[in-house]
Amino acid sequence: MSVARIAVVAGDGIGTEVTAQARKVIDAVLPGVEYQEYDLGARLYHRTGEVLPQSVQQELAGHDAILLGAIGDPSVPPGVLERGLLLRLRFDFDQYVNLRPSKLWPGTTSPLAGVKPGEIDMVVVREGTEGLYVGAGGVLHKDTPAEIATEESLNTRHGVERVIRDAFDRAQRRERRHLTLVHKTNVLTHAGNLWSRAFAAVAAEFPDVTTEYQHIDAASMFMVSNPQRYDVIVTDNLFGDILTDIAAAVTGGIGMAASGSVNPERRFPSTFEPVHGSAPDIAGQGVADPAAAILSAALLLEHLGRHAEAGRVTEAVAAEVASRTAGAPLRTAEVGDRVAAAV
Amino acid sequence: MSVARIAVVAGDGIGTEVTAQARKVIDAVLPGVEYQEYDLGARLYHRTGEVLPQSVQQELAGHDAILLGAIGDPSVPPGVLERGLLLRLRFDFDQYVNLRPSKLWPGTTSPLAGVKPGEIDMVVVREGTEGLYVGAGGVLHKDTPAEIATEESLNTRHGVERVIRDAFDRAQRRERRHLTLVHKTNVLTHAGNLWSRAFAAVAAEFPDVTTEYQHIDAASMFMVSNPQRYDVIVTDNLFGDILTDIAAAVTGGIGMAASGSVNPERRFPSTFEPVHGSAPDIAGQGVADPAAAILSAALLLEHLGRHAEAGRVTEAVAAEVASRTAGAPLRTAEVGDRVAAAV
Ligand SMILES: CC(C)[C@H](C(=O)O)[C@@H](O)C(=O)O
Ligand SMILES: CC(C)[C@H](C(=O)O)[C@@H](O)C(=O)O
Repeated sequence: MSVARIAVVAGDGIGTEVTAQARKVIDAVLPGVEYQEYDLGARLYHRTGEVLPQSVQQELAGHDAILLGAIGDPSVPPGVLERGLLLRLRFDFDQYVNLRPSKLWPGTTSPLAGVKPGEIDMVVVREGTEGLYVGAGGVLHKDTPAEIATEESLNTRHGVERVIRDAFDRAQRRERRHLTLVHKTNVLTHAGNLWSRAFAAVAAEFPDVTTEYQHIDAASMFMVSNPQRYDVIVTDNLFGDILTDIAAAVTGGIGMAASGSVNPERRFPSTFEPVHGSAPDIAGQGVADPAAAILSAALLLEHLGRHAEAGRVTEAVAAEVASRTAGAPLRTAEVGDRVAAAV
Repeated sequence: MSVARIAVVAGDGIGTEVTAQARKVIDAVLPGVEYQEYDLGARLYHRTGEVLPQSVQQELAGHDAILLGAIGDPSVPPGVLERGLLLRLRFDFDQYVNLRPSKLWPGTTSPLAGVKPGEIDMVVVREGTEGLYVGAGGVLHKDTPAEIATEESLNTRHGVERVIRDAFDRAQRRERRHLTLVHKTNVLTHAGNLWSRAFAAVAAEFPDVTTEYQHIDAASMFMVSNPQRYDVIVTDNLFGDILTDIAAAVTGGIGMAASGSVNPERRFPSTFEPVHGSAPDIAGQGVADPAAAILSAALLLEHLGRHAEAGRVTEAVAAEVASRTAGAPLRTAEVGDRVAAAV
């Protein structure tokens, strides 16, 4: 019996290169993992018109986790691969906790003046299965002056409460034990009110976690003026999408931004992927930074209960990044080799 | 006959102090303006339970413009004053161009390392009458496990096209003539598709304006990593709310962030207000920075066709800010006096 069964969706562009390094590191820290590769993304779409064949989705469901590289190519119309594959997995596999840690690592530089490594250390818990991402909308009278287009944000007590509880739980296990709810309660009064009430209700179960509320516009500003203030943030799907990219930017860009789309109960496989895209401009050259993909593998190991292994991978990536010489060219495979050797 | 009839809604907290300076400067640069004050905001709400009495709204409609200070107080439930007053004015007065310039002025410091005054100079044209701000939503089965809450984003061809045309028009009159559309077409496919098609259609009328498209998450990141790249941005109501606060943050905070909620046809009065809030913590002490309020007055003058006067006010504010001594205490009235003396 294998220690874990991982589906690999390397995807487009640099996806193949960076997932190869993530696998290398997993194998070094946890021998015996069984992999199955799935060729999904722009190539499959252009060849067959399919995005996520049902048989593939069924096979994916049988794995312990999915390691994803990057999906997307300018040649595919917007939304096709995003809605058809990435969001399909998040929704069908009930990956309601979209986990995005942001840390300013030693050896990396924040674009913010005077902010030093170690000072920024937060986790955004983004809701992953509801909100504006559900795809509830439509167009009427297309291409006439009477045209209207709608998008509906759907929020359930069930969906909101469970992700808030997960965030409280994570906050409780961290040193600062602080949780910030981000929404836009002064404008989105219906959904905002649901989020606020659910937050207050769950907060009562975690008396040792201090809490705070911020509007998304204010939080976006603080993310620049004072990102040090954040510990754990919980927010809805769209706000989380935006906030985590600002968090990535202030911690030096998406080079180190890992993410997990997690079904905490493990009823379905969770997906782990770097936040960066397929970067077609540098694909195939062996120069993509695999750090975010390897850190995503660490989140995967953590999710599978391999805490010690996850910790070793994270530390090895941190050490590798800290040891880089400014200006020296980066080789994807060498980074993977060094991290694999260190774990 | 007066040169202009301006309704003053000083509002809450520091609103009174900063609008007083804006008036002082308007009077210095354009004598003969007639003002009418309206006491709206938290005080009126607590006294009478009213937010925007119909008679007041009718009187406001008879003015050339509205000079607004700040609305809001922690003692009022979220949404009451925002939806009932600020958004009421934007919607009922068809203020579909929400105008937010962001500039890194001499004498101000960006939190971004190495970014120098003059390097950031953009205008965000935010749609002001549609999208998620329309208030179309509701709650079912409140406070039960079956609860759901919805928010609907409504986008019309009419509403989208007119704000895009306004943005192209502004871009064409600037030096770089560059316009960026920001949306989330890969997820919000219905609304995103409408925005994209309307943008492409209007672009054909402005062949000398170069264009670009970015997803809101990517734009939020670039706003930190490379805000210099932006000239004019056009985007929807919610994305504009978030982006302009990031833009304010990277240009040194909301101290200099002015805004106008504009009905370009002048069928209804437009509202001009600083982006900052009522800041109850420093209210009444005479230490609030009136720069953003005075710059908003400059946008007001510009809107009324007083281009020379608007230019003089903007320059005087810029000079005053550049002449400040770091660390010296700021007195609200003195800033107003200096700017008024200089125009
Ligand atoms: C590609 C896109 C669908 C996705 C999202 O919006 O969630 C991405 O931006 C992300 O953050 O994972
Ligand atoms: C106060 C609030 C309703 C408002 C908005 O969301 O538009 C504010 O944030 C702004 O940007 O003017």
